[in-house]
Amino acid sequence: MLKFDQNIELKKSGNDLLMAGEILIDMISEDYNDDFTCRTYRQFFGGSPSNIAMNAHKLGVHAVVASVVGEDGLGNFLIHELKSAGIDTGYIQRSAEGPTSMVVVTKSQSTPTPVFYRGADYRLSYTEKLEEKLMNSKIVHFSCWPLSRNPARETIEKIISKAKMNGLLVCFDPNYHPMLWEAGEDGIEYVKSVIGKVDIVKPSEDDAERLFGAHTHEQYIEMFLELGAKLVILTLGKDGALVSNGVETFRFSSLATEVADTTGAGDAFWSGFYAATVKGYTIREALSCGFAVSAYKLKYTGAIVDLPKLEAIKEIYGL
Amino acid sequence: MLKFDQNIELKKSGNDLLMAGEILIDMISEDYNDDFTCRTYRQFFGGSPSNIAMNAHKLGVHAVVASVVGEDGLGNFLIHELKSAGIDTGYIQRSAEGPTSMVVVTKSQSTPTPVFYRGADYRLSYTEKLEEKLMNSKIVHFSCWPLSRNPARETIEKIISKAKMNGLLVCFDPNYHPMLWEAGEDGIEYVKSVIGKVDIVKPSEDDAERLFGAHTHEQYIEMFLELGAKLVILTLGKDGALVSNGVETFRFSSLATEVADTTGAGDAFWSGFYAATVKGYTIREALSCGFAVSAYKLKYTGAIVDLPKLEAIKEIYGL
Repeated sequence: MLKFDQNIELKKSGNDLLMAGEILIDMISEDYNDDFTCRTYRQFFGGSPSNIAMNAHKLGVHAVVASVVGEDGLGNFLIHELKSAGIDTGYIQRSAEGPTSMVVVTKSQSTPTPVFYRGADYRLSYTEKLEEKLMNSKIVHFSCWPLSRNPARETIEKIISKAKMNGLLVCFDPNYHPMLWEAGEDGIEYVKSVIGKVDIVKPSEDDAERLFGAHTHEQYIEMFLELGAKLVILTLGKDGALVSNGVETFRFSSLATEVADTTGAGDAFWSGFYAATVKGYTIREALSCGFAVSAYKLKYTGAIVDLPKLEAIKEIYGL
Repeated sequence: MLKFDQNIELKKSGNDLLMAGEILIDMISEDYNDDFTCRTYRQFFGGSPSNIAMNAHKLGVHAVVASVVGEDGLGNFLIHELKSAGIDTGYIQRSAEGPTSMVVVTKSQSTPTPVFYRGADYRLSYTEKLEEKLMNSKIVHFSCWPLSRNPARETIEKIISKAKMNGLLVCFDPNYHPMLWEAGEDGIEYVKSVIGKVDIVKPSEDDAERLFGAHTHEQYIEMFLELGAKLVILTLGKDGALVSNGVETFRFSSLATEVADTTGAGDAFWSGFYAATVKGYTIREALSCGFAVSAYKLKYTGAIVDLPKLEAIKEIYGL
């Protein structure tokens, strides 16, 4: 059982976090485009696990990204960004079979629906090199992206089983979105089956509703626990989160005072939670660190902001 | 036989051109990006057959585009552009299974390789509505894009067979590129098999080399004729074109005096050639009109420029 007032016992490994899954170009329109007058976009580094790795590195822990880019300039850009941040890019594979994956977001006054261009990201192979790094990591993290398509799905399945056999903490962002899955495939049942294999899940309210339909927060928590997750962090936007280990359930408040842009707030939470967990804080403290990093990020625009070390953020938020 | 000094006898149909195939977003970097400092892109209307339709409409003939966009804002943008130009968008299908297709071009001092994001474009269905428009058109045109993947490939095969049975002029841009085809598929053999089923092909020198390897211009012409094309227009950039009907071969000079941007020069040629053909000019005259429209386009930046009516362009170039 994961107790709130104890730290999580982690493997003694050289690397802290292995983030497996998507690395992407976020192509975001400069302005609202409901009347088709804004035609300018800006290219950003993206992909949730990759953002978490970037953040965690800034907070002061070691992280690598296992993902795939195409053999193109956009892939070069993503690798360049990781390198500039000081992250080992040796686990970024390159594929000649698809372009670097991209998400285009055209800002809209109504519904700013992201458009997914899946290219290289799901072509992740389970290699000896990846296994070696996995064996030498403390925590492994993935989202729904690699689960949605093969060969990445099989790679993640191997990663989960190897990680569990070797005592890693296995964490999953159940950010299910039907557009990630191929038409006709039941992504929901598959995602539910994965929840039972992991230690920690952090669904948003929207994720929970996509997976289970409309229910209360408490019912969502119960549903994730019944599937087998050991710690469920149900995030509720400005209302913080409801967190349960199956025995106790606590409400955590958001620490945000100033909200400039919500992009990447969830990734910031994960990175704060992981950094604190690696540094040996209790689960309760690590959750607070997650909210502190998220609150810090919310003050700035963009998914990746210039985070100070975890200790500095703890001080700012009086933790 | 297609004689240079005769016009091409066209079906008496209400619509002039049916352009079947790709409609795309061209996402083009604002500046060179070798050092990853340029992160700004601009979104343009694109896709060769769609550009030809836009141009032909401006030159004064009727054209429609049969293609597919996703159910997203980028698809809305493309439909909006066609509508603004006065083109009937009733033959643009929408697909929930893939995003609007996109080509990202990051300008580079070395090799500015386009990155293809195939989404909705190849999901073209052969519908009753499409068949009805086809039966009421004079010329049908397609490129390698829809041929590279199903279901569009089967749709084009049906279009070719129906068009031939009903006396339409069938024209093909053999712009073969290995990146359009799925890994392991022999696109070259398939493209060659299609060349034998059409009336007119307009390969560039690069297209010819990709299909046949390195040969002389005259050998390329011979190879396309042997496959069964009735008129081969081998374009040679600033050196104009070599055109053959299998009996006579003529060299045509480029009419360009001023080159601001070569993007879309080939599409401009096709549109001038088609507009003149529809208006009853001889093949020789129509080819000259193609070069005149291309020369006019070359003076401006972008694939689609503000073309005047064909008669005005003929006057400018003394045809």
